[in-house]
Amino acid sequence: MSKTAGIVIIGNEVLSGKTQDTNSHFLCRELRTLGVEVRRISVILDEIELIGKEVATFSRNFDLVFTTGGVGPTHDDVTMAGIAHGFGVKVIRHPELERRLRERHRENINEARLRMAEVPEGAELVGEGFLYASVVKLRNVYIFPGIPKILQERFEAIKGGFRDTPFFLKVVYVKEGEGVIASILNNLLASFPELLLGSYPVLDNPDYKVKVTLESKDMNYLSRAFQKLLSTLPEGAIHRIDGN
Amino acid sequence: MSKTAGIVIIGNEVLSGKTQDTNSHFLCRELRTLGVEVRRISVILDEIELIGKEVATFSRNFDLVFTTGGVGPTHDDVTMAGIAHGFGVKVIRHPELERRLRERHRENINEARLRMAEVPEGAELVGEGFLYASVVKLRNVYIFPGIPKILQERFEAIKGGFRDTPFFLKVVYVKEGEGVIASILNNLLASFPELLLGSYPVLDNPDYKVKVTLESKDMNYLSRAFQKLLSTLPEGAIHRIDGN
Repeated sequence: MSKTAGIVIIGNEVLSGKTQDTNSHFLCRELRTLGVEVRRISVILDEIELIGKEVATFSRNFDLVFTTGGVGPTHDDVTMAGIAHGFGVKVIRHPELERRLRERHRENINEARLRMAEVPEGAELVGEGFLYASVVKLRNVYIFPGIPKILQERFEAIKGGFRDTPFFLKVVYVKEGEGVIASILNNLLASFPELLLGSYPVLDNPDYKVKVTLESKDMNYLSRAFQKLLSTLPEGAIHRIDGN
Repeated sequence: MSKTAGIVIIGNEVLSGKTQDTNSHFLCRELRTLGVEVRRISVILDEIELIGKEVATFSRNFDLVFTTGGVGPTHDDVTMAGIAHGFGVKVIRHPELERRLRERHRENINEARLRMAEVPEGAELVGEGFLYASVVKLRNVYIFPGIPKILQERFEAIKGGFRDTPFFLKVVYVKEGEGVIASILNNLLASFPELLLGSYPVLDNPDYKVKVTLESKDMNYLSRAFQKLLSTLPEGAIHRIDGN
């Protein structure tokens, strides 16, 4: 069994179409490379009750939970309050975060800026010891800001801790359409029921019509399934092969 | 009250980081322009039970539901079966879709290709009368394929039916950071509690630090809130103003 993960994207700006979320794709790619299986993404509104319920549910259902967005000094930054609500704890001012904020802003510190030190009670800091590389963690929930650059830096700093057995992948670009190869793929799955097999049609590509992906955490199993696919596809149907 | 919508993205390829979903952003932008409020996006695995449960829940909670992905002739295309399961109906072969598929493929028709005619019992076709512009609809659920180009064409063909009172938007690009303007925004919300107010910090832009968005379906209300914001921001704090 892989480690599983769920991602909660918090942000009216995504749902109202103002911002395209790129954080979930970044996290999905990185986590897959680490061998972690992302099983669900939710994009929800900046509402305390909603955030609390969603994050608590994800926390029960998955080994790791990542939230992005809603962390900051303004009225619409309610992620910390939402997560605290979901776990039935208070929002407190984290002493170490407060110390760093006071050091940074000196005489310009104010109530709004100090909101950046607020965390659910019981939360800890993980990652490097300077302000913008720490990730706030409560139980199995990692709380990230929504700005992609900051999220990526912080994720890089802590990702080693998430590593699991890697997935092995073969990608076969096939010149025939899905209507032709569907039965071949069905037969392949009948022989290799544990194989993670994907079939993705591609429009307007002169070289191939379908991208077929084969994955497994068992390299040997993958290799045998891959050989079977190669031997059952029609002569000349393969445009290109990729993989790790 | 606006019409509400939820989007269900069905696809292991998104969760495993192989594909970046762009369909949800397209739908969020289009629906916002039409005056429809998207309240939730879920990205879930290609699993029948999961799809059924999610789509049925969305159907109860929102006026309109859009699904993307998992529609096609191969083993991993289980959206139709999932939605049928969720509503407790059978999967049937739609006579009109079958007719079009047989006309298109002639003597090359096969079982895999005929899977493209399968829909949940009770589903209807909306949109133009040729194969690739019809959208399969069951109750308030619109079932789209995952390929962005096809999804966009089909959405364009039917979107007129979703139109609601539009949102009016003002965007103010502010040179001060959130730590400075947070209290101004809080005061604005205290005076205009119905205002949809967003505050989005921007990194590494030499011209401004925060993008502030004000929205309402009531143009007059928006206009008064906007004037109040302009009159309370510090002198010279505005870089630029946008909106409709």
